[in-house]
This record gives sequence, C-alpha cells and structure tokens, in this order.
Amino acid sequence: MRLYVGLLHFPVYNKNHDRIASAITTFDLHDCSRLAKTYGVKAFFVVTPLEDQQELARRVLRHWTVGHGAEYNSNRKEALELMRVSPSLESCVEEITRWEAQKPLLMVTDAAKRKAPTLTYGQAKAMVRADKAVLLLFGTAWGLVDEVFKQADYLLDPIEGYTDYNHLSVRSAAAIILDRLAGRDQLDS
Amino acid sequence: MRLYVGLLHFPVYNKNHDRIASAITTFDLHDCSRLAKTYGVKAFFVVTPLEDQQELARRVLRHWTVGHGAEYNSNRKEALELMRVSPSLESCVEEITRWEAQKPLLMVTDAAKRKAPTLTYGQAKAMVRADKAVLLLFGTAWGLVDEVFKQADYLLDPIEGYTDYNHLSVRSAAAIILDRLAGRDQLDS
Repeated sequence: MRLYVGLLHFPVYNKNHDRIASAITTFDLHDCSRLAKTYGVKAFFVVTPLEDQQELARRVLRHWTVGHGAEYNSNRKEALELMRVSPSLESCVEEITRWEAQKPLLMVTDAAKRKAPTLTYGQAKAMVRADKAVLLLFGTAWGLVDEVFKQADYLLDPIEGYTDYNHLSVRSAAAIILDRLAGRDQLDS
Repeated sequence: MRLYVGLLHFPVYNKNHDRIASAITTFDLHDCSRLAKTYGVKAFFVVTPLEDQQELARRVLRHWTVGHGAEYNSNRKEALELMRVSPSLESCVEEITRWEAQKPLLMVTDAAKRKAPTLTYGQAKAMVRADKAVLLLFGTAWGLVDEVFKQADYLLDPIEGYTDYNHLSVRSAAAIILDRLAGRDQLDS
C-alpha cells in the first residue's frame, strides 16, 4: 500500500463559510497517527501554514518520539513517528512525489453530497489495494474549501450511517474511512 | 434498531493493570454522541461512579443541550441529547431493561485477542439488524477489567487494520465498530 493521509487546517471554512486557517486539536494528531499506524498508512501529514501551530504539532511530536512520552508509552511513539508537519497541501504533495517518484492521486471526502461523480468505497479500496499512490485528505473546522475539491482526482461518497445525520468529527470520519479503504475484509471472516 | 452504547470509566485497568476509575475525556463525549446520532444508536451512556466526573459530563450536556452551545450549534445539541450519565454498568443495564422491557445483550470488544469464542462483525451486524436489544460496551484507559468480559454475552473480534498495531483510541474504535455494525452496506453501493 502507498496510502498517505493529510489533515488540512488551511484552506478550510469556518461556521460562517469564511476561508480560514483552523487551530490544531492535539487529539486529532494522536488519533490520526494511531489510525495511520493501524491501517498501514505511510505518513500522516498535519498541514498548516501558521508557524505557531506547526511548532505546537512539532512539540507534541518531540514529546512522544524523543521526549518523556517515548519512554512512557512506546506504542504512541511508533504511531507518532508517522506524523509529518507540512506548511501547505502543495508541499505535502511534493514530498510524497519525491518519495514515490510519482504524483499521488488526491482523494477527498465531504460530509455533504456533491454533484461531482463520486467514488464508492469499494472502488477506492480496489485502488488502494492495487498499490496506487494515494493521498487521502481531510478538512478540519467546517470542511475543505471548494478549490481543494476542484484539485482532487477523486471524490469519495459521504459516510452514510444509519440516519441522515452527517456531523461526525474529523477523527471519527478518518477512522471510518481508513477502515473502509484499508481494513481487512472482516464481514465474512 | 435497538442498539445502545456504553463508555465505561469504571472498572477499567490503568497502565500498571490496577483497577481504577478513569477521568472523563470530554472529546469522547462529543465524538461518541455524534457517532450515536449518525448510526441510529438509541442512547449513549457515560458510565462513571465518581460524582465530580458525573457532574463534568452533565455540565457538557447542559451547555450543548440547553445552554449557549444549543444555540451556537444545533447539530451538536441533537447529538448530545442522546447522552445519559450513569453511575454503573448495572444501573445502565437496568435503565435499558425498563425501556425495552427486556435485558439487553452485552457485547464487548477488546484490542487483544481473547480465548473466548468471538463474534464476527457479520454475525454481530445481523443481530443488530434483527432488532435485538444490544448494549455495546467500550472501556477507557487501558481497557475493561476481566469481570466485565465474564458478564458479557458476546465478545467481538478485535479490530484488525492492515498491520498488527492495536492501540487505537476508544473514539476511533467506537467509530469503526459502529460503522461495521450499523453502517449502510457501502462496498457495492
């Protein structure tokens, strides 16, 4: 698998549909790193242009990979070692392109149904299993701005639960989507 | 569906395998309430015997259901309205038994593989779909103590990702398991 995850804090919308850079939630860093480790993701990128927020993410990273946290909980260390801090989506794509010698396919997801043709989870899983280099993007705050959707190669179907409520946390959405794309086939095992 | 979720803060293990009551993580309350709303769960129980922790959970609940939060974000209100605070697993089971006029089946999950015969996610999903009253239990901290497993009617297989790493947050585990048990069938849709 050549699957990557990016958590974008810019450009995203706030509640009033303004373009903003959101603040980092440290729980997201832990939960997404642990998910990345569980689902064989090659790297998890925390994307923010704000230098103080980059420094916050790096401080969490240092604490758990080389600081006291590394000794206290080596499982957490293993997970956070997959985390990278990146100033923009572009530089995150560049970094992956250098590693893979190929541009990754951009897959995005949105809580709301969009008009663009979307990919089913079965199709997306097949793509990931076929070893395509894929960067799966998640937006914080009130979601990724439209231009990120325009840049994307593929749009995933929104997560459908049992009801029509579609206001999961980005942490929950990442957990569900990674399980759908990279989990072992479990229903009949 | 007659599915319930319980998040136990007692009795659980700490890192040294002592029996403890863990502190509430408010992120868990939000994430699990939103998951409950998404997946048609009838109620989400926050279980703790500690009165100050019950009060903390109730304060979060009040803020988002009748306080300023209810006005600020009505979606969050809808989700948190499913949350109940309960002092023990027993009283949570009693409450469900009164509502359903029947004792719920207890389903538990554990990150580590246990010897007891386990239920596949396909079997568990069929049970939920067949409208059995089910209480799905999750443990905080280092997991539920053995006696909870002994009380359980069914033990779910551990979540298997793509690797053998099994240290997800309880928030992530709840997201993945609810999607597996109560999500719409998505792979071929």
